[in-house]
Amino acid sequence: MAGGDGTTAVGELLLSRLRDLGVRHIFGLPGDYNMDFLDQVEAFDGIEWVGSCNELNAGYSADGYARLNGVAAILTTFGPGELSAVSALAGAMAESVPIVSIVGGPTVEIMRQHTSMHHSLADGDFEHWVRVAREVTVAQTTLTTENAPDEIDRVLAECWSQQRPVYVRLPGDVVRARVARPARRFTRPDPVAAPAQLDAFATAAQRLLAGAARPAMLVGNLPIRYDLGPAVAALAAERNWPVAAHALGRGLLDESDPHYVGIYNGGDGEDPAREVVEGADVLVCVGTTFFDWDGLFTADLAPERIINLQRDSAVVAGTRFAPVAMSAALRCLQQIAPNRGAGWSRNPSLLAEPPQLDPSSDEPLRQVRLWPAVQAMLREGDILVPETGTPSFGAEAMRLPDRTAVLAAPIWGAIGYATPAAFGAQVAAPDRRVVLVTGDGSLQLTVQEISRMLALGQRPIIIVVNNGGYTVERSIDGPHQPYNDIDNWRYAGLPQAFARDTPFTAHVARTEGELARALAGLDGTPDHLTLIEVVTDPRDLPIGMPQWGRETSAADYHAKLPTTPKLPVGGLP
Amino acid sequence: MAGGDGTTAVGELLLSRLRDLGVRHIFGLPGDYNMDFLDQVEAFDGIEWVGSCNELNAGYSADGYARLNGVAAILTTFGPGELSAVSALAGAMAESVPIVSIVGGPTVEIMRQHTSMHHSLADGDFEHWVRVAREVTVAQTTLTTENAPDEIDRVLAECWSQQRPVYVRLPGDVVRARVARPARRFTRPDPVAAPAQLDAFATAAQRLLAGAARPAMLVGNLPIRYDLGPAVAALAAERNWPVAAHALGRGLLDESDPHYVGIYNGGDGEDPAREVVEGADVLVCVGTTFFDWDGLFTADLAPERIINLQRDSAVVAGTRFAPVAMSAALRCLQQIAPNRGAGWSRNPSLLAEPPQLDPSSDEPLRQVRLWPAVQAMLREGDILVPETGTPSFGAEAMRLPDRTAVLAAPIWGAIGYATPAAFGAQVAAPDRRVVLVTGDGSLQLTVQEISRMLALGQRPIIIVVNNGGYTVERSIDGPHQPYNDIDNWRYAGLPQAFARDTPFTAHVARTEGELARALAGLDGTPDHLTLIEVVTDPRDLPIGMPQWGRETSAADYHAKLPTTPKLPVGGLP
Repeated sequence: MAGGDGTTAVGELLLSRLRDLGVRHIFGLPGDYNMDFLDQVEAFDGIEWVGSCNELNAGYSADGYARLNGVAAILTTFGPGELSAVSALAGAMAESVPIVSIVGGPTVEIMRQHTSMHHSLADGDFEHWVRVAREVTVAQTTLTTENAPDEIDRVLAECWSQQRPVYVRLPGDVVRARVARPARRFTRPDPVAAPAQLDAFATAAQRLLAGAARPAMLVGNLPIRYDLGPAVAALAAERNWPVAAHALGRGLLDESDPHYVGIYNGGDGEDPAREVVEGADVLVCVGTTFFDWDGLFTADLAPERIINLQRDSAVVAGTRFAPVAMSAALRCLQQIAPNRGAGWSRNPSLLAEPPQLDPSSDEPLRQVRLWPAVQAMLREGDILVPETGTPSFGAEAMRLPDRTAVLAAPIWGAIGYATPAAFGAQVAAPDRRVVLVTGDGSLQLTVQEISRMLALGQRPIIIVVNNGGYTVERSIDGPHQPYNDIDNWRYAGLPQAFARDTPFTAHVARTEGELARALAGLDGTPDHLTLIEVVTDPRDLPIGMPQWGRETSAADYHAKLPTTPKLPVGGLP
Repeated sequence: MAGGDGTTAVGELLLSRLRDLGVRHIFGLPGDYNMDFLDQVEAFDGIEWVGSCNELNAGYSADGYARLNGVAAILTTFGPGELSAVSALAGAMAESVPIVSIVGGPTVEIMRQHTSMHHSLADGDFEHWVRVAREVTVAQTTLTTENAPDEIDRVLAECWSQQRPVYVRLPGDVVRARVARPARRFTRPDPVAAPAQLDAFATAAQRLLAGAARPAMLVGNLPIRYDLGPAVAALAAERNWPVAAHALGRGLLDESDPHYVGIYNGGDGEDPAREVVEGADVLVCVGTTFFDWDGLFTADLAPERIINLQRDSAVVAGTRFAPVAMSAALRCLQQIAPNRGAGWSRNPSLLAEPPQLDPSSDEPLRQVRLWPAVQAMLREGDILVPETGTPSFGAEAMRLPDRTAVLAAPIWGAIGYATPAAFGAQVAAPDRRVVLVTGDGSLQLTVQEISRMLALGQRPIIIVVNNGGYTVERSIDGPHQPYNDIDNWRYAGLPQAFARDTPFTAHVARTEGELARALAGLDGTPDHLTLIEVVTDPRDLPIGMPQWGRETSAADYHAKLPTTPKLPVGGLP
């Protein structure tokens, strides 16, 4: 409790700064080094504890939460707790998601004396897991009574500025130690732009854009994090520029926006989005990450006609200006961008109505019929969580209603992410409808978080594509190998095992007609959790996956890099 | 395939060396960087693939397998796969369990060019996860065509010698590259003892032991790993020495052995094992690890009367001799140990018959009745897997039948370990009966591995103590706090959700009578998986836990270290 003497406990200081940052819930598990802090969380006004079934799931839930809420926090315990969440933090690093990872640690004295403790390697070295954290977070600290006020603010500022995870270790005896209460609230740091660098950027950008007849934008995930959707939409509208999205940039612009042309990820097919991006005489990349699955090897783009806006730098035809925050660079472009006269085409899928399911059909369900049906079910404002694999390919072909949030993590590409992320997203946005689409293989990694959805009365629609294994892996290698087969659970029976009295609805759809009937009545938000097990053939692949599988196999096992790459393989400068 | 030209593929070389080392199964998941190797595993004679539901579970399964089989291996994929298993490898480091962690990685060329790849941070740095591996394994390598023959043998030798995990990264293009086939099989390295050091140790030990009237042994987990149970039993029998076990050393000696006196973990109670250990004029510690939960703060032991045998060193009253392998030092002690005349008492629980359950009782089941009932059910040769928490306290009070293997990991203390470890142990020893005792909280972390037990036709007895949350944490802090409560699953309904047609038996026991009826007929190995959900009051703690909880709380949050420690807090020198 904040004392009348102007002091506060370190744990409470951390909580109040987290609240200032925007954290409203903390995910995680109790452990024997973090419960004094948990007592403070329970007593604290404005932040709620949300227990998770395990730490990896807590990390993924925090990721989903942060994407909706702006920032998230998890609490684990020293050693087994924190290490179990490492992969989720690495994913947040890769995908730029701000998560504060709080770890309850041993007391300062126990660490100073190199005591042989449980949850350690019993070797007296208490820095092992801090060194691990250095690989998956952008800032780390171990709080002490002396450093807490400064260090808390430092790491939270880094978390916000870089939109990436940070690591805070809170020793068991520091949590209740008292420190002076800061005079001011914590405020999110402003984006940084050095005026001279910004001017130089403007001059260079203006020179490149002079006479551009076919400028365009390609957007990634960072402008979503920095809430720059309105700025991008405004530039596109005012200057009549087309905008394509990288897979990660989906949801920044409404897909009904006439300037939105579709998803671009390289390739060599006929595709209006590709024409817009590769045919641009100047392409403004806004927070994009090119990687092997997102155009790195196939994009036909010359860096000398690219303006690349990143976190805190702006690059014009290879010349880098920094510090120039993305928001400042974008504001500057709004001033100097020329109007585009030339027209463009949009991806035809943005215009076509999806085919309807036939409720009377007894045909086995096929992917080509499944995904349009999921699309037809989506409503404005939904949160769509398509797991990496079959569902992400299925989602890529969908036209999304306005204000759809898409939670996908294709750089990290961890299967198992979607289910806990959907749980976390629903905690952040209880009034929006969550549509989770996962595969049987993916679900098995992190299935237990369905029990938390039930316990909190969440009402997501969960579609489980049961094709008997890891079909995304089958498309790469071993299409008939037993290692890609998994056990055939009764997926529709899971909600009953995971709760005693919570109502739910479960369906199994093996035919088109069964799917049509299961989806009927899902116009609004159902009254309770709805799980639809959709059975498809193990070798029935969604559109795009066969070619992607061949390319991935070539890159993974045959060292095939493009002979004449248009982009540096390390990514866009 | 091994070629007629005297060459072999790197992946196959790795497999043949693993087989020589003693690996018969590999746990893990397919991922897009490891499937060319998985194709080799499927084709390889003598090593079987065992898929896991997720990577953490694969790591724990490998841990359980290694404890029965002598050594284990897991296969994951670069990035999300390997990081998800990090906590299990850290546990194997802490508990000294030899696991070869094989990671399918990107091609050499892709890494050399710092390519922006999925499953990485897209920053071109492919060493992040190697640096993580350095914290949780004793040797690491990234295989190349040039180094593979030497490096494989180097890391496998380290794994065996140190009985700890190692890390092998196998790039996607190296897996099929051909190298010369070694002329000789891989052989497990012999323990190392420098003759002069061994002589000096013998002299020092003889001097300390001269005139010892009450010598005794305290055994830890390492002599189990090094298969020194027969040597310890022989010394005890020939010289009439009593032997106490640290919690980790349980199972080394049969508990019916008249020289076995019980478990020692410090404390201050009346206890024959404590009298033997603390009353010894010379105590020989064989591979023990003192840590906070195992006597570190309370053991009344003076290092000057301790002979401490470790992996590769022997310490006599503080003077260290190395390299002296544990087996060599033990053999030496067998020669020079004096006969003990003085008698001793054994823990009374080793002599008493457990109370019988009353099959007609409608009384709510209590911990004090539960654990003797579990003890009474155990049979010679069982594999007992008591989860850290309530079950580990329950197990501590049991007398175990001969040749019982106990799988516990108290240093790492990760809840969730037991279920996948039990699965792995059963893979290693399909003909032994597995008795898994877990808590509801622990089970929820890693529950999906029950589906793998069912799929493989395993027939374990699974006892789930449902007390509505993390009771082990409640004993430390927050006995009534909601953060220690968890969702009330239908545990007995899980097997039905996890398999379609596999038979199983499930019971719910709320009363003593219900438990008696559920346990009846479990004399032999049941025909199929048996799950018993045992409902107890959330605040009903097993013997020993309340005091332990208070001590842990004091150490975790109040920096309480003993004012006059008898042992160095860093552990025994």
